[in-house]
This record gives sequence, C-alpha cells and structure tokens, in this order.
Amino acid sequence: MGFVQEMEQARRMVEARLLEFFIDEGLQTAMRYSLLAGGKRIRPVLAMKFCEAAGGTMEEALDFGCGVEMLHTYSLIHDDLPCMDNDDLRRGKPTCHKVYGECVATLAGDALQAAAFQTVLTAGGNWHHDGAARAACILAEAAGVQGMCGGQYWDTLGDGQPHTEAELTAINDKKTGALLRAACMMGVIAASSHRVVEDNCIVAARDYATNLGLAFQIRDDMLDVIGNAAEFGKPIGSDVSNEKSTYVTLLGLETCEHRVLDYTQKAKDALESGAWRGSTEFLQKLADSLAQRMN
Amino acid sequence: MGFVQEMEQARRMVEARLLEFFIDEGLQTAMRYSLLAGGKRIRPVLAMKFCEAAGGTMEEALDFGCGVEMLHTYSLIHDDLPCMDNDDLRRGKPTCHKVYGECVATLAGDALQAAAFQTVLTAGGNWHHDGAARAACILAEAAGVQGMCGGQYWDTLGDGQPHTEAELTAINDKKTGALLRAACMMGVIAASSHRVVEDNCIVAARDYATNLGLAFQIRDDMLDVIGNAAEFGKPIGSDVSNEKSTYVTLLGLETCEHRVLDYTQKAKDALESGAWRGSTEFLQKLADSLAQRMN
Repeated sequence: MGFVQEMEQARRMVEARLLEFFIDEGLQTAMRYSLLAGGKRIRPVLAMKFCEAAGGTMEEALDFGCGVEMLHTYSLIHDDLPCMDNDDLRRGKPTCHKVYGECVATLAGDALQAAAFQTVLTAGGNWHHDGAARAACILAEAAGVQGMCGGQYWDTLGDGQPHTEAELTAINDKKTGALLRAACMMGVIAASSHRVVEDNCIVAARDYATNLGLAFQIRDDMLDVIGNAAEFGKPIGSDVSNEKSTYVTLLGLETCEHRVLDYTQKAKDALESGAWRGSTEFLQKLADSLAQRMN
Repeated sequence: MGFVQEMEQARRMVEARLLEFFIDEGLQTAMRYSLLAGGKRIRPVLAMKFCEAAGGTMEEALDFGCGVEMLHTYSLIHDDLPCMDNDDLRRGKPTCHKVYGECVATLAGDALQAAAFQTVLTAGGNWHHDGAARAACILAEAAGVQGMCGGQYWDTLGDGQPHTEAELTAINDKKTGALLRAACMMGVIAASSHRVVEDNCIVAARDYATNLGLAFQIRDDMLDVIGNAAEFGKPIGSDVSNEKSTYVTLLGLETCEHRVLDYTQKAKDALESGAWRGSTEFLQKLADSLAQRMN
C-alpha cells in the first residue's frame, strides 16, 4: 500500500470512530458540527502510526487519537471566537459560532475538552489502566497553560507582537507543538499496554513531533501567502491584513522553505533514536508530505 | 472541634494548597485571580470529608478536591462571559473578563479545565494509580455534555425558559449536581487507594450529593430574593430582572423552603446506606448549614 492509501485508510478509521461519540441533539449537534468538519486528522493518524511503529495496532491507539482530535477541535472553536481571532471560515465552512452563536460555541468547546479526557480515560473500555492515566496526563499538560493555552495567550496578547524567530518558535512550540507531541507520545504509550516499549521510543516520538510541529507552522505561514483559498480552506493573506508577525514576514519565503526542509529532516532523524518493533516508514513519508502540502 | 471550626480548618487546607498551583505571570495571573477569589470551597471540602468518612485522611483527597475546584472555577469564568450570563461581579469582585478581557478570560477558563485533570491525575505525585484515573474519569463525565456543560446549555438556551419544576430540576441536576456528585464520589475513591472501601459508600456519596445539590440550588434562588447583596456576593433580584424562571417564580418562597428542608433530609438519609469506617457527622451538619445559608 502506498503512502496516500495508507494515510486514507487511517483517516477513514478516525472518521468512522469519531462518528460514534455524539448524537445529533442539543449541544452535541454543535460539537459534532466542528468535530466532523473534516480536516487532515494528523494528530490521531500520528498516534495510530506511532503505535504501529512501537509494535502495536492502529486500533489500540484509535481512542487516544480521537481524544486528541476532540481537544484540537475545541481549541479551533475557541480560537475562532470573536474575542479571539474572530474567524468566519474554518476548513471552508462557517465557524461554529457563526452557525450556533457564541454562547453555544463556547460551551461546545468546553464540552469537547471534557470529552477528550473522558475518551482517553475510557479508551478500550478499560479506564483502570495505567496507560490511559499516563496518556491523559500527557494530554492535560499539553492542553494547559504550559502548552496550548499558554501558546495561544502569548500569540494573541502577551507583550504584543513577537519580533524574533526565537520568540515566534517558542510560541508555536506551545500552541501547535505541544499537542502534536502529546499525540505522538500517546501513540507509543498505547502500544505499551500490551507489550514492552523502550523509553527511547517515547523520546523519539517527542522529538519527531517537536520538529514536525515547527515545519508545519512555517508551512502554514507560507500557505497564507502562496496558497489557494479554496484548497487551503481559509482566506489567503489574512496574516498580512491582520498585520501579524509570521515566519514569512520575519524571514522571507525562501528562508522559510529552507527551515521547513530543515525541521522535516530533523523530525525524520529523531525517529532513528528509537528501538522500534515496527516500521517508521510511514512517519518519515508523512513528514515529507506535510513539508510540501498545499492545504 | 465544632462544625464551624472543622469547616474552617478544611477550607484553610484547600486555600493553602490552591496557592501552590500557579505563579503570578502571564495567563496564570488570570487563572489565579479567579481561583483564589475565595468562595465556600464546598466541593473540595466535600471530597476531603467523604474521604475521612470512608476511613481516609483529608490530605489524601486534597488534590482531587483542588482539581474539582479548578473545574468549578473555569465554569464560573465562562458562565460570566458576555456571551453567556454577562455578569460583572462574582463573589463581590469584578469578574475575570472585567479585569483581563474576554480573550484572556476564555483562555484562563480553558487552561483551568486542563489543570483540573492534570491535578487529579497527578494527585499524590502518583499518576499511574487506578484511583486517579477513575476519579479523573468521573470528573470528565460530570464536566461534559452529559453533565455541567449540558446543564448550562439547557439553562441558557435549549427550548427557551423551563416551565415545570421537573424541567428546572433536570437542568440543575446537570449544571450543579453533576460536579457535586463527582466531588463526593472522588473523595470516597481517594480513601480507597489505601484501604478497602465498600461500593455502597460510593452510592451513598452520589445520592447525598444529588439531594444536596438540589437543596443548594433552591436556596440559591431564594437568596436572589431574600438575600443581602453584600453578604451574597452578587446582585439581588437579578433572576427577576432577567425574567429567569427559578424555583421561587415557579413555587413561591414557602414551598421552596419546604423543598430545601426535604432535599436536605434526603441527603442526610442517603448517608445511612453506606458502610462507613469514619464518621459522617460533619457531612450531616454541612447539609443543615447549607440549607440555612445566607451567602
């Protein structure tokens, strides 16, 4: 099976599982609207493929992955709110608050965060399992003030616009990197519930995710300039019109392209430090594919 | 030691522990502002006293209790937002968004929810512990769409104003009851980490909390009419001016008073079905004290 087919197979498993969590009623309707709005599902796919690399099955990491995706979706709903980035479109569709109003969107995000932890802690129907507690703990740390929320805070407020590449990287590492790291590490932990997994695999997963996250964010900033709105799923040029400081405004397009390739290589190199039972080929190809993505 | 002293002792333990979680910097400043704004700390005290009743120590349930209090605080911050209840005062102080703005208040709430789970899962520094996972799972369920967020949804939107006592009770049982239930059950679970605890104690804790929650909410509605703003910590008569359907508007003050006494008695009766190793005297007195509270 080629990379594209393998990606599609994993994504389809995620979509099918996500469909099972909520019903079309009350607040759950708004939660479903955003959770099932498509997207690349990179975080759950990473969890599942790291589980495979560590000798497990994709199934074993599926609910950990879905939990991470719920947490990611909540963060998108809240980021899009008028008091935050005030975005009307997400993945080419009206944002949650545009459809259901601010109050429901806030609550839908809040409930998705709780659902994320519930999903991870009940993964495999077995909540009294060390791995689930450990995974949930990693997720909580990544989601909180030391991770995603802290990154979003410094991004939208903090001391005003970030001015150096190092500052921007510190923010993005929290805002985007933390959750990617959690997804990858949780995938390895999912494998450890049925077999011994070396600690160096957790470290490798963490370092892969850190570099993948930075490459991903720089590519995102590039696509805001060189992308196509329909393909990208959000308006092009919004960073410039918002006078946002991005990797492109700081470094220029050419240096950005080098940085993306650089971080992508570091991500792939990080994989080599793990004593894997399975193959890391998909993870290497995924890094390459994200570096060249147009959406 | 009398009830008031015992309550004060437990509250002081909670205040001291809550002080240790965040520093006065960035987003954490806003989280601390709301978390350390006082309040009765009923939820952590309940967790600690149920742990004692089940034969444990208050210490053993302290971090579970602090996690529940963080979750409660996040819900207050988000409930106060302009897109929700739009309140300017909470516990006699300006609400979080009044001080830090909507964006930071939203993020502070989000980060407190994540911190709640992190705190429960790392309670006692021992995350790979069945009890912590079980407690976090109970908390997640209580916080989510089947519990607190669902209750808040039906309260602020849903099918418009609730019209019957049964509808109002269903909403309050989710909005307030779910988290009180979680606090009480988590206290019992905290005790079970070092000794055998009978399942009937968990059931008793759950039923006590359900009835306590309803008594608490009815008393709250009464205080909106008969209370004193300075003592109550929020404006009196806001339910009436918001044309909100409350227990008082539905049943009148006199019936409300009967209901409070009724539910309080049921809460105390529920304790009798548990095979406790410790005393439930404090829990009984706490129920009585909440029934008569003026704030």
